[in-house]
Amino acid sequence: MRVLSGIQPSGSLHIGNYFAMMRRMIEFQKEHQLFCFIVNYHALTTVTDPNLLKENTKNAILDFLSLGLDPDKSIFWVQGDVPEVTELTWILCNHAPVGLLERAHSYKDKLAKGLSAHNGLFSYPVLMAADILLYQADAVPVGKDQKQHLEITRDIAIKFNNTYGETFVLPEPWIPEETATVPGVDGQKMSKSYGNTLEIFSSKGQLKKKVMRIVTDSTPVEEPKDPEKCNVFNIIRLFLSEAEQEELAARYTAGGMGYGEVKKELLARMWEYFAPYREKREQLVNDMGYIHEVMKKGQEKARAIATVTLDDVREKVGLNY
Amino acid sequence: MRVLSGIQPSGSLHIGNYFAMMRRMIEFQKEHQLFCFIVNYHALTTVTDPNLLKENTKNAILDFLSLGLDPDKSIFWVQGDVPEVTELTWILCNHAPVGLLERAHSYKDKLAKGLSAHNGLFSYPVLMAADILLYQADAVPVGKDQKQHLEITRDIAIKFNNTYGETFVLPEPWIPEETATVPGVDGQKMSKSYGNTLEIFSSKGQLKKKVMRIVTDSTPVEEPKDPEKCNVFNIIRLFLSEAEQEELAARYTAGGMGYGEVKKELLARMWEYFAPYREKREQLVNDMGYIHEVMKKGQEKARAIATVTLDDVREKVGLNY
Repeated sequence: MRVLSGIQPSGSLHIGNYFAMMRRMIEFQKEHQLFCFIVNYHALTTVTDPNLLKENTKNAILDFLSLGLDPDKSIFWVQGDVPEVTELTWILCNHAPVGLLERAHSYKDKLAKGLSAHNGLFSYPVLMAADILLYQADAVPVGKDQKQHLEITRDIAIKFNNTYGETFVLPEPWIPEETATVPGVDGQKMSKSYGNTLEIFSSKGQLKKKVMRIVTDSTPVEEPKDPEKCNVFNIIRLFLSEAEQEELAARYTAGGMGYGEVKKELLARMWEYFAPYREKREQLVNDMGYIHEVMKKGQEKARAIATVTLDDVREKVGLNY
Repeated sequence: MRVLSGIQPSGSLHIGNYFAMMRRMIEFQKEHQLFCFIVNYHALTTVTDPNLLKENTKNAILDFLSLGLDPDKSIFWVQGDVPEVTELTWILCNHAPVGLLERAHSYKDKLAKGLSAHNGLFSYPVLMAADILLYQADAVPVGKDQKQHLEITRDIAIKFNNTYGETFVLPEPWIPEETATVPGVDGQKMSKSYGNTLEIFSSKGQLKKKVMRIVTDSTPVEEPKDPEKCNVFNIIRLFLSEAEQEELAARYTAGGMGYGEVKKELLARMWEYFAPYREKREQLVNDMGYIHEVMKKGQEKARAIATVTLDDVREKVGLNY
């Protein structure tokens, strides 16, 4: 099964991204053919600083490779390295009703946030459809906010198939089993937009600062505490075995343990957990030649599949003469 | 000066196209660098029959080459052979306000004609902007109906240049001197959409039928006639010298000449006028290998220029990492 997932190059990864999505993506590789790409064309809809886009693209590559994405097993590339997707986008535009795009939640949300309405934001779902259909993906892991985009993709694919004959695989949404929401330092869902994140690859000093800022209640040290209601507990448990979680919960309910103590443990655990990835990342960051080589191979693998689809599409719509 | 002009592959050329546009295009070649291309990506906005699109594309190539477009002197290619234009389209979409596109007359007109509103029709002016800006054209010959599109192109180019620094030449509209409107067989302006055309390359039998159908009044043969009010006169004059026009006008006002007689003369003149082009076309149509070779060279020349612009644009927006 071909599972396809695009990654926004939107800056530093946090543990919310990791536990909710990335870890599972890495797992996918064992059983499925993973198509994973950094969506820098999409990023152009909101990023106009070229250096920021470049940095974010590089960081996303480094993050994924460090965290276990295997570029030999999977197909891992940068969207903008396979411009064939923009040609398919144009072709699909002719099968994407304006009304359908106007009803896209993400478009409406972006307008509501005051982003100026340009045609990149408006046509975003068509580029996404091209991403998916170009690689004939069977399944696309989607969160709730992306479900409608996948429906638009299916609508466009059905219209095209009806007009020109069977061409595109209809992708299925792959809605992952409910995972525990990762809380941020303020107790809300961890999200870059809330500014409540713990970054995977920040320096120990920065991480410490953020961990120490995790919001807790004012129960005195000696009194018993409810672990389930504690943000620190709900974060640290991600790094603990069942037995360790129970042991720590017991220390909460027994009293005599301050939040500062668990925060220090969280810092240590998290630091330890990501140590091998951090080391890998440090190696990689010093070998950008290797990185470019890896991405070039990814480009070639992706393009080999993309051109098969595109050749078929071009012939079907009559672009070859 | 780089003069750029896109040609719709919309079926058989008629003498209205020829005298209003093509003849001048062919003339351009003497003084300017002509960029001339068959817009098959644009055609996808309205044509869903692949064979029709292929046929029309081939015919447009044959027509232009037969009528004097010099592929060594000019750059002549098929739009879909240089897909780089679709990549630039995506990038420019992010600088094309939705409101600007909603106000495009051609979009509103197409909706009014009952065409279903898809994103290809909506985004049409962005593809056109990419066509023009990719080749850094200085001037674009535009009729009244295309003037707004060129303004949109300039708007997008200005926005892009302001964001990323000087990148695109701002194209000037090149509104040709007023030429006499070519009347159709019913006296209205000759236009494919009115079904009143005389095709340049139709068979003599078909042409005769159409010429004989030219609407005239019922003045009897022996009476004097007003040449200026006669559709046949207004068509045949395109093929006559000044002296010949005066001579024929005198025969009109003298009386004793029937419309049938002038129609026969028109047929003969037109047939003779296009004879060398027709012969050239017959040669070419039997040598499609040569045609493909010519278009491949055109593709290479166009692409060489396109990639210079696109490399610069990709670097400026941050797609290279």
